[in-house]
Amino acid sequence: MRVAVVGLGLIGGSIALAARERLSAEVTGWDADPSAIDAAVARGAIASGAGLLASAVAEADAVFAAAPVGVLPELIAEVLAHARADAVVSDVGSTKRTIVEAVSDGRFIGGHPLAGAETSGVQNASAELFEGSTWYLTPGAATSAEAIARVSALITSFGADVAQIDAAEHDRLMAAVSHLPHVFANVLLSHLLAVGAPTVLGPSFRDGTRVAGSNPAIWSSIYLDNRDEVVLAIDHAIDLLQAVRGDLDRADSDALLRWCEAAAEDRARLGR
Amino acid sequence: MRVAVVGLGLIGGSIALAARERLSAEVTGWDADPSAIDAAVARGAIASGAGLLASAVAEADAVFAAAPVGVLPELIAEVLAHARADAVVSDVGSTKRTIVEAVSDGRFIGGHPLAGAETSGVQNASAELFEGSTWYLTPGAATSAEAIARVSALITSFGADVAQIDAAEHDRLMAAVSHLPHVFANVLLSHLLAVGAPTVLGPSFRDGTRVAGSNPAIWSSIYLDNRDEVVLAIDHAIDLLQAVRGDLDRADSDALLRWCEAAAEDRARLGR
Repeated sequence: MRVAVVGLGLIGGSIALAARERLSAEVTGWDADPSAIDAAVARGAIASGAGLLASAVAEADAVFAAAPVGVLPELIAEVLAHARADAVVSDVGSTKRTIVEAVSDGRFIGGHPLAGAETSGVQNASAELFEGSTWYLTPGAATSAEAIARVSALITSFGADVAQIDAAEHDRLMAAVSHLPHVFANVLLSHLLAVGAPTVLGPSFRDGTRVAGSNPAIWSSIYLDNRDEVVLAIDHAIDLLQAVRGDLDRADSDALLRWCEAAAEDRARLGR
Repeated sequence: MRVAVVGLGLIGGSIALAARERLSAEVTGWDADPSAIDAAVARGAIASGAGLLASAVAEADAVFAAAPVGVLPELIAEVLAHARADAVVSDVGSTKRTIVEAVSDGRFIGGHPLAGAETSGVQNASAELFEGSTWYLTPGAATSAEAIARVSALITSFGADVAQIDAAEHDRLMAAVSHLPHVFANVLLSHLLAVGAPTVLGPSFRDGTRVAGSNPAIWSSIYLDNRDEVVLAIDHAIDLLQAVRGDLDRADSDALLRWCEAAAEDRARLGR
């Protein structure tokens, strides 16, 4: 089994490590930043780096592209141009509609592992990063059954649970599950620093801002790519904030209690 | 040492347990709900409950009132009416300006332990709940030096770090550090359920909503009592959300990158 990883950050590096340690795969890697290749070799994620993307992917059975979503369409096109005719190709971008619409090749299937950390870089990569996590796959109209099956098998061997989902539905869900929480985390942090930086923070603040300030290059790219859904999510969030603001302004204790009770019911409904 | 706890929920029960286990204090307790008294006896937080608030506090050296902030002014007045002339009295309400302005008695000092959990009730109480946490004390104009010193000593023995702060400043800070994060948690949950309840949640969503749906009686009371500061916090948050929404709407990648970088700088500035 030969696996190529294009983009050697936290996720790409963890895929490389998982492929080496769990599948005894021969793993090649490439990154636009030569120092990332050196770091991946030092971390043991790849045996040696390739100077050119084309040579990194030329012999691979499977290629994973792990780069900010803004550069993925171009990157995947280049991977497909140099990959074997019987290779399978996937990506790990946090948004899926754009890339799935941009690529029409039977070998390609979009993917998104729900794993990560506030950390970044191959030095923090781990073969265990995907253990027990969900890994979305978003087949496009052209995706072959073989690409679905082979990428699913690889991901399963990394310890993740595969979940197939429509790309547009994925992006709508992610706006609510991930992108809005990240926006809120940044806003909470920004508001607190506008009020004054305290020496003491409570647990609700620490949890609510854990992901604040996450990798700016990756996250600005995610927000931009999923801007339609994130704008809808922010608009709905503002409506909800305005409603409770109105209850507060009117000192409407009944309405505030109902709002808090509804949140408790929401939590029970979500079941966790 | 005789300690009385008025209000036997998670916080009151934990104070009772800490006083018994760490100070070998004789602890009496009262709650408006007789079943909470029974539960506190069952949990070992108090040896026996008092049928009347007056008898629970009559002999105490120190009294802690742990009830929703909306009932505290009336409750503290009743405690002070029945407590010894040389007793000290404090509360654990999450907002402090209202109670500090309402009480003018040398024996009283407002307090707020930054401890708690998504859980509630004396059955989840623990003598270790305050270990390593910060416990704000907000002396009023009438508070005696002795009340400050004796309540500080008690709190320190519970394992908490005492921090004195002005009551109004406390409430402004809490709106940013705690109340807005709770509002955001409820909004994130409500938005997700409006989009559709997924089977898979990411870590940023779990962290951002950990406190969603917290005890409705306690939290509606906190929001109401601190409504001026919470409204200001929500208004500022909406301004920040509108700004990033505008960047998204214009697909302004430079502005989005700057916004993400500013969040990363905010986090570095906060230092954790």
